[in-house]
Amino acid sequence: MADMPSRVEIGVTTGPIRGSRKIGVGPLNVKMRAIDLDPSCGEPPLHVYDTSGPYTDPAARIDIGAGLPQRRRAWIEARGDVESYERRETRPEDNGQLGPDRSGGVQPFPNVVRRPLRARAGANVSQMHYARAGIITPEMEYVAIRENLGRDMLKDHVRDGESFGAAIPDHVTAEFVRDEIARGRAIIPNNINHPESEPMAIGRNFLVKINANIGNSAVASNVAAEVDKLVWSIRWGADTVMDLSTGRNIHDTREWIIRNSPVPIGTVPIYQALEKVGGIAEELTWEIFRDTLIEQAEQGVDYFTIHAGVRLPYIPLTAKRVTGIVSRGGSIMAKWCLSHHKESFLYERFDEITEIMRAYDIAYSLGDGLRPGSIADANDEAQFAELYTLGELTHRAWASDVQVMIEGPGHVPMHKIKENMDKQLQVCGEAPFYTLGPLTTDIAPGYDHITSGIGAAMIGWYGTAMLCYVTPKEHLGLPDRDDVKVGVVTYKLAAHAADLAKGHPAAKLRDDALSRARFEFRWRDQFNLSLDPDTAESYHDQTLPAEGAKTAHFCSMCGPKFCSMKITAEVREFAAKQNAPVETFVAAQDAEAGMAGMSEMFRAHGGEVYLPAAE
Amino acid sequence: MADMPSRVEIGVTTGPIRGSRKIGVGPLNVKMRAIDLDPSCGEPPLHVYDTSGPYTDPAARIDIGAGLPQRRRAWIEARGDVESYERRETRPEDNGQLGPDRSGGVQPFPNVVRRPLRARAGANVSQMHYARAGIITPEMEYVAIRENLGRDMLKDHVRDGESFGAAIPDHVTAEFVRDEIARGRAIIPNNINHPESEPMAIGRNFLVKINANIGNSAVASNVAAEVDKLVWSIRWGADTVMDLSTGRNIHDTREWIIRNSPVPIGTVPIYQALEKVGGIAEELTWEIFRDTLIEQAEQGVDYFTIHAGVRLPYIPLTAKRVTGIVSRGGSIMAKWCLSHHKESFLYERFDEITEIMRAYDIAYSLGDGLRPGSIADANDEAQFAELYTLGELTHRAWASDVQVMIEGPGHVPMHKIKENMDKQLQVCGEAPFYTLGPLTTDIAPGYDHITSGIGAAMIGWYGTAMLCYVTPKEHLGLPDRDDVKVGVVTYKLAAHAADLAKGHPAAKLRDDALSRARFEFRWRDQFNLSLDPDTAESYHDQTLPAEGAKTAHFCSMCGPKFCSMKITAEVREFAAKQNAPVETFVAAQDAEAGMAGMSEMFRAHGGEVYLPAAE
Repeated sequence: MADMPSRVEIGVTTGPIRGSRKIGVGPLNVKMRAIDLDPSCGEPPLHVYDTSGPYTDPAARIDIGAGLPQRRRAWIEARGDVESYERRETRPEDNGQLGPDRSGGVQPFPNVVRRPLRARAGANVSQMHYARAGIITPEMEYVAIRENLGRDMLKDHVRDGESFGAAIPDHVTAEFVRDEIARGRAIIPNNINHPESEPMAIGRNFLVKINANIGNSAVASNVAAEVDKLVWSIRWGADTVMDLSTGRNIHDTREWIIRNSPVPIGTVPIYQALEKVGGIAEELTWEIFRDTLIEQAEQGVDYFTIHAGVRLPYIPLTAKRVTGIVSRGGSIMAKWCLSHHKESFLYERFDEITEIMRAYDIAYSLGDGLRPGSIADANDEAQFAELYTLGELTHRAWASDVQVMIEGPGHVPMHKIKENMDKQLQVCGEAPFYTLGPLTTDIAPGYDHITSGIGAAMIGWYGTAMLCYVTPKEHLGLPDRDDVKVGVVTYKLAAHAADLAKGHPAAKLRDDALSRARFEFRWRDQFNLSLDPDTAESYHDQTLPAEGAKTAHFCSMCGPKFCSMKITAEVREFAAKQNAPVETFVAAQDAEAGMAGMSEMFRAHGGEVYLPAAE
Repeated sequence: MADMPSRVEIGVTTGPIRGSRKIGVGPLNVKMRAIDLDPSCGEPPLHVYDTSGPYTDPAARIDIGAGLPQRRRAWIEARGDVESYERRETRPEDNGQLGPDRSGGVQPFPNVVRRPLRARAGANVSQMHYARAGIITPEMEYVAIRENLGRDMLKDHVRDGESFGAAIPDHVTAEFVRDEIARGRAIIPNNINHPESEPMAIGRNFLVKINANIGNSAVASNVAAEVDKLVWSIRWGADTVMDLSTGRNIHDTREWIIRNSPVPIGTVPIYQALEKVGGIAEELTWEIFRDTLIEQAEQGVDYFTIHAGVRLPYIPLTAKRVTGIVSRGGSIMAKWCLSHHKESFLYERFDEITEIMRAYDIAYSLGDGLRPGSIADANDEAQFAELYTLGELTHRAWASDVQVMIEGPGHVPMHKIKENMDKQLQVCGEAPFYTLGPLTTDIAPGYDHITSGIGAAMIGWYGTAMLCYVTPKEHLGLPDRDDVKVGVVTYKLAAHAADLAKGHPAAKLRDDALSRARFEFRWRDQFNLSLDPDTAESYHDQTLPAEGAKTAHFCSMCGPKFCSMKITAEVREFAAKQNAPVETFVAAQDAEAGMAGMSEMFRAHGGEVYLPAAE
């Protein structure tokens, strides 16, 4: 066609995150960020978990058209249980092009691997399979070092938190990782055809992770924008990225994304399958779906959302809901089931799907197709009926050593959140929970990163392993670059709040370092230690732009004369000079005892909430 | 001086909130907003709580230089227990001007009341005093109607929530309000010299309220901007506003704010007192502080933050903290106490302060001067020692029938939030709790409206009566207009999430109405029912700007062909046509029973988390 562009220019954001330097730790050269602090404080650099890949490494050469280095390929091949083979031919319908021109403005990725890998006949290449065989893989070792972040600084740290039965260790060993994978309590999503990825774990006893959704839609499609969003979202901390493309060019867009992604990529294969049948759910078949799984498996998708819990009997349970079925995958399968009045082929063919998963080490993300789409529908019977089926399927997948996580809601008021976590842990045998929010109210479109960030922090605390982000555009439109960043940072802070509350041994290091910097007016350190140094500095500069204000011992809230932190420093100095030990003062315990006495006296006076006026 | 401007132009945002119409309910003409819905849905207009005052009433004439109508004045005078008198002379130091020019760019409010009111000798004009005498005031009646919002629609509503021991009634009567005020479980902050205010209640058994802070500082001062922020913050839902000005022109700025405020205004009088002694805490005296209280009482401040719990013995307990004392009021008093090595004059003179409070019906907001400023310092002995003292002072104030609320933290990780609420309820006899957030992590400056919105929603759920907002500029700079709006809307959604979780009978009405609109593609209704209709609509338009897209039965996420809500509607129709009652399907309960059986079988197999691979 005449308007086919000769070449799409794809630009991404590279360069170090402000105030951070990239380091490699241990023999596996596990990538982290080190934040150097002002020499005045005498503190060592703080190491933080880093998802940004080579893009923030000034030493790395980035070539989007070539893709990232295939670091894991040697590990995979060394195990001797894979074979390469000629990949499935890409067909026009893979890109939603039923006519001869398959470009749609997107050129194919130039560096496609012609011969993907799969398990040899009879072999199982899943990390769970190795783990259960007692094998510690390099992936597990990588995860152990990566997760272990800073714990060594904490020799005399007192554990402080409420983990609701999680088993977070003081120190993460590779053996611990292996055991968690073997038990199904954690997964390492890493398709053997995505050797560019840096191994990471999703599980209740590891750091809480976050996922960012990207992808084009039927009304907006631009591969350059999607690759840019991928790199942008991992820069700010996305641990995995889901490509939820639903329009044209799905195949090629995904290829660009996977080849350039250092984080696991998830998809919802039914979306593409639906495009292949022109959007008509009734025309979906197992064969088309299966073919789509193979297509995506060969490209290297690390986890598949499979809505196999949307069973025919549960569908009518949604008819009385305020918002029916809001999951796209769920509604497609519901329509298919009702049209044919047959049980879902995803449920019926589950074991066949599992065979594919184990041949590539793709993890299940068992989709919650019946999740509530409004406060009114939270925790209803349709939702929990599906969850029970997901529990059944979890055990079936585990029987084949296939890794599993479970997707969760959605829209849930605060008092109903914990029930979701408790039921999931019980029914799904502690398989990692992966929730979308949940949104704690429906009345704030435009702010649903926040309505859901509240629920995400809480359910992360209760035990959810990965939080799927929500952007400010949720329910309203497609997130742009700024929305992606706001969504990622919001979820990063929610995940961190959860780690803190669970009592993760290393989480508090960063809060304490930042708070010390704040208290000592080390402005640069405060910016650099924050989740978003650029925004922190720019907000500071809006009020006090002068360079001197960044070293000044005051801030814009109070100004130079009237500053509580400054006064506290004086108080501290004064208290020290007074040479008056704390013990000479009434200790808080005594005050407490005193108040308890008063409280007793209060009760003795008949428990009246107030006493008669004195006059 | 030469650069004194002839007249400051003060402009504020007026006009209806998009999609809402102002209504007056009952004989007291209680103002609410009615949101009319599309006729296609057949639903009645939804009534929502409205804090915006006459500014959103097209029928109201706004004259900032004249101030708002003094609606409550007739109620106050009718009680026959007040007298007017010549007000205290305004002095240059009231505005931080020690020289002859007291303007500093701010002209005095033109319409100052020369003869304020106070209680006649021996009288007590507090709402608590009337309540305890069994008198239902018009203020209480107004509150009852205002709070009762929509409960009448809920005849067969099933209460759903966890209120942690709160006693939220199905229907709010004026007698219920009186009883709550009498018991000290709620306050109506309304200085008799602020007759412009619309009565509102702060208490655990009423809707959760939010406060917005405004005010100039030593580095930025602009009365027009502050009045604009007042009107802007109540437009988006601030229930009270605190004027935290600390620079020059404090007196005049406050006069402009109070005269134009339909919501209660709070202050921290020690800030102004400190300005009067040139910023040198040691030079503060009881006389200067007392004079400042009278000055502000005459102007009409509705509640005073008084840091009377910062006692000398507690101060050294903060020396080992990561961030010492971060409350400005707390650090001022700490410095004063240590400098003189004397007990705080606020504590020593507490009963004298109470005498002033009761003469004007000013409510105490007992300040938490020792609140934690970092995760590391949360729930420490300094913090709780102060809280116990606040409990003691609460009972002392109540003995004089003076209304009290208690300020709370601060920075608290999620797992330590509930302890704050539980201790406060116990120690302070259920006096309303008023917390700043709390922030659930320290590592996200620039996003502290969110780190704190998480904590605010949770502590609101647990029982906090009012949430003090935090803006994105917290810790970094002074909030501008946009920051104020984001802070207010964030806290409004947090307060609403708390109301929902507590099981407030009327809260869910709005969520359900919005969710129905969403499900039925009534885009305009969805925008209008949201907390911020302008942002919701503008986000929608960024992706699909055409007017037709606002009535289209699809959205930008999925496009016209592939829409889960559309498919659900078809599913519903299909299910109805099938004429297959829900009962013919396996009910979720059966599925649950089945899974329980499976779970039992699982345990019978030795409780292994996984079973051996099938092959």
